[in-house]
Formats: sequence, structure tokens, C-alpha cells
Amino acid sequence: MAGKEIEKLIKTIAKLPALGTRSARRIALYLLKNRAQSLSPLIEALQEVEKNIKTCAVCGNFDTDEICSICASPSRDSKTLCVVQDVADLWAMERIGFYKGRYHVLGGVLSALEGVRTEDLNMQALFDRVEKSAFEEIILALPATVDGQITAHYILTGLKDKNIKVTSLAQGIPMGAELDYMDDGTIQLALLARKPV
Amino acid sequence: MAGKEIEKLIKTIAKLPALGTRSARRIALYLLKNRAQSLSPLIEALQEVEKNIKTCAVCGNFDTDEICSICASPSRDSKTLCVVQDVADLWAMERIGFYKGRYHVLGGVLSALEGVRTEDLNMQALFDRVEKSAFEEIILALPATVDGQITAHYILTGLKDKNIKVTSLAQGIPMGAELDYMDDGTIQLALLARKPV
Repeated sequence: MAGKEIEKLIKTIAKLPALGTRSARRIALYLLKNRAQSLSPLIEALQEVEKNIKTCAVCGNFDTDEICSICASPSRDSKTLCVVQDVADLWAMERIGFYKGRYHVLGGVLSALEGVRTEDLNMQALFDRVEKSAFEEIILALPATVDGQITAHYILTGLKDKNIKVTSLAQGIPMGAELDYMDDGTIQLALLARKPV
Repeated sequence: MAGKEIEKLIKTIAKLPALGTRSARRIALYLLKNRAQSLSPLIEALQEVEKNIKTCAVCGNFDTDEICSICASPSRDSKTLCVVQDVADLWAMERIGFYKGRYHVLGGVLSALEGVRTEDLNMQALFDRVEKSAFEEIILALPATVDGQITAHYILTGLKDKNIKVTSLAQGIPMGAELDYMDDGTIQLALLARKPV
């Protein structure tokens, strides 16, 4: 049907998250029809990322340097460490611009179902880092799932001999949400953690 | 937040059809995390397409040669020409493997709303081609929209002095469809075009 180069491109695009063969075909056609405005800039942007972006040796963030700008910044609070599952979560935290401490990217959470063990994560590096640094608080910003909670518990156990405050993000009703649309677990949690106004 | 290379990649991906900033971010992160299995093969596939794929000088299809394999094939019926809006439609026709004639890709349909004029389409080339070739039937496989029908009418007018049969795809109830879910226009059309069984 289409040449083997186009077929190969469609197959490669279809493997990306959130895309199937149909949308991959649409994207491939769009790129072919808009070479100058679309295909060449995409190749260039991908090559720049391939060439320049490194994984930070300290926290696991992506940046152009061996040590990322957050880890290298002298103005960020070195007493607080926020543990996140993924770089996407780090970006989400940074978008708010409220948190001024450091990060540690685990690269996933423990999962019996998906066979993710501590060796598969950036976990030992976390304990080593805590050992060497003078953190006073570790914020576990892990997903509010079973796997996320098990991972949080594993980290808590590993840190229990250290004299460090370990906290986690508050759970409850998200801003702007209608009670009626919330799941029962969240409502119960929010009720248990109720506060005087 | 993320480095400017990553931001640029996210912006470039977000411009592709069916993708927004959120999915672009997800894809960029996926590529960064799976460099060997994903980023490099994608760059390679895109470069191969950029280097090798050309637009067929005769019909407007994409292929590795100046004249595409369908136009160059001596075994395809040279008396029938199928006019399609887009290469995607040509691919759809070829997937069925039923049609054995030639194609002409318009690259769009006339649209007053979107400002698409005949000069913007591969239209003059169609008339020139019909002039020079010995087509006996021209099948207008254009979209069943107002713009598609106006385009079909324009082509029909342009060909009215030629002694060529011009046909269009049948309209009616698609296979497997429930009457209840069909729009009124389609039902009316199918009723008007009813056939003895």
C-alpha cells in the first residue's frame, strides 16, 4: 500500500503512548504533506533532545547538564527533598512554582503485578543520598494508589532509624470538585481528616 | 521547568494532528525514558521518509520514486481513474484491493469557508491528465460533504465536453449499521436510491 519507509514510520509512531495505528497514519500523512513546516522541525527537535538531554546523576531529572539545574541551584532549599514517581510529576510540581526544595525521581513505584522491584527503581540512590546529605524533611509525593502507598511505606521503613521528618501530600477532595462525583474512598478519607474552619 | 530542548520538542509534537500539550508531554517523556528502543528508531524512520519519499508527479501519491508504483504499474487498468481527496483515501481504497485502476489525488476539496480554491488543489493537472490519456471512466470518490459535492460538480462541469463516463461512489446505509442510529439525510437518500432485491 504505502511504501515500506512510510509503513515503518507509521509503526514507529503507533508505538508511542496514547497513539494507535489510525492516529499514527494521520500523523505520518500530515508530516509528509508538511515537510518544511513539520517533518524537518520534528527531526531537528528530536535530534537536539537526543544529543543534549541527560539524566541528572543526582536526582534523575532530565536536563542538558550532568547535574540538573535544580540540583545545581544554590538558591534552592537543601533541607527538603521531594520524592516523586516520574519526571512528569517533578514538572507538575515545578509548574506551581511553590516548592523550593530538591527532588528525587524514583522512575516508577514498586509493583508486584507489573514486577517492579526496588532494584528497578532509583531507590538505593535515594537512601545513599539521604545518608550523605542533611535533609530535615522528606516529602513523599507518590501516587495515591496501592502501589504508591506500598512504595511510600518501603521508603518510610528504610528511613526509620534516621532522625528525619517524613511527610506525604494531603489527601482529600480536590479543588472545584463536586462531592457527588467523588468516589467513596476519597469522601471517607476527607471526612476522617476533617479540620476545624 | 524542563530544558528548552524538551520544551521545543513538546511544542513540535503538540502541533501534530490529534495531539495536545498533555499528550505531547507524555510522548516526549516516553521518548526520553526509552532512548534506544524509541527515540533513535523514530528519528531514523523520520529521516528515511524525509530522504526517500517523493510526491508522485502524475497522481500525487507518496512513494520512493518520482512516478509512484501504481502509476508505473503496467498491470493496472489505464481506462479508469479514481479521483480522491487525499493520500489517506487512496490508501483506504488500496487496503480493500478491489479497485485496479489509476488514481488522482486532489490534495483537498474546494471550500469557500476555508478559502480553498481550484489553484490550491491538484485540479488543473487532473484536466490535463484526462486530456492526454484515454480514460473511459472517472470515479469521483470524494467526501459526502457539501464541499466534496461542490468539488465533484466542478470536475463534472470541467469534463462535460469530453466523452467520458463520470461516476461517484454509491451513497446509502453503511454495512452493519442500525437504521435507528443513522441520520435522517442518509435514510432519505437510501430510500430514494432503493433497489429491487
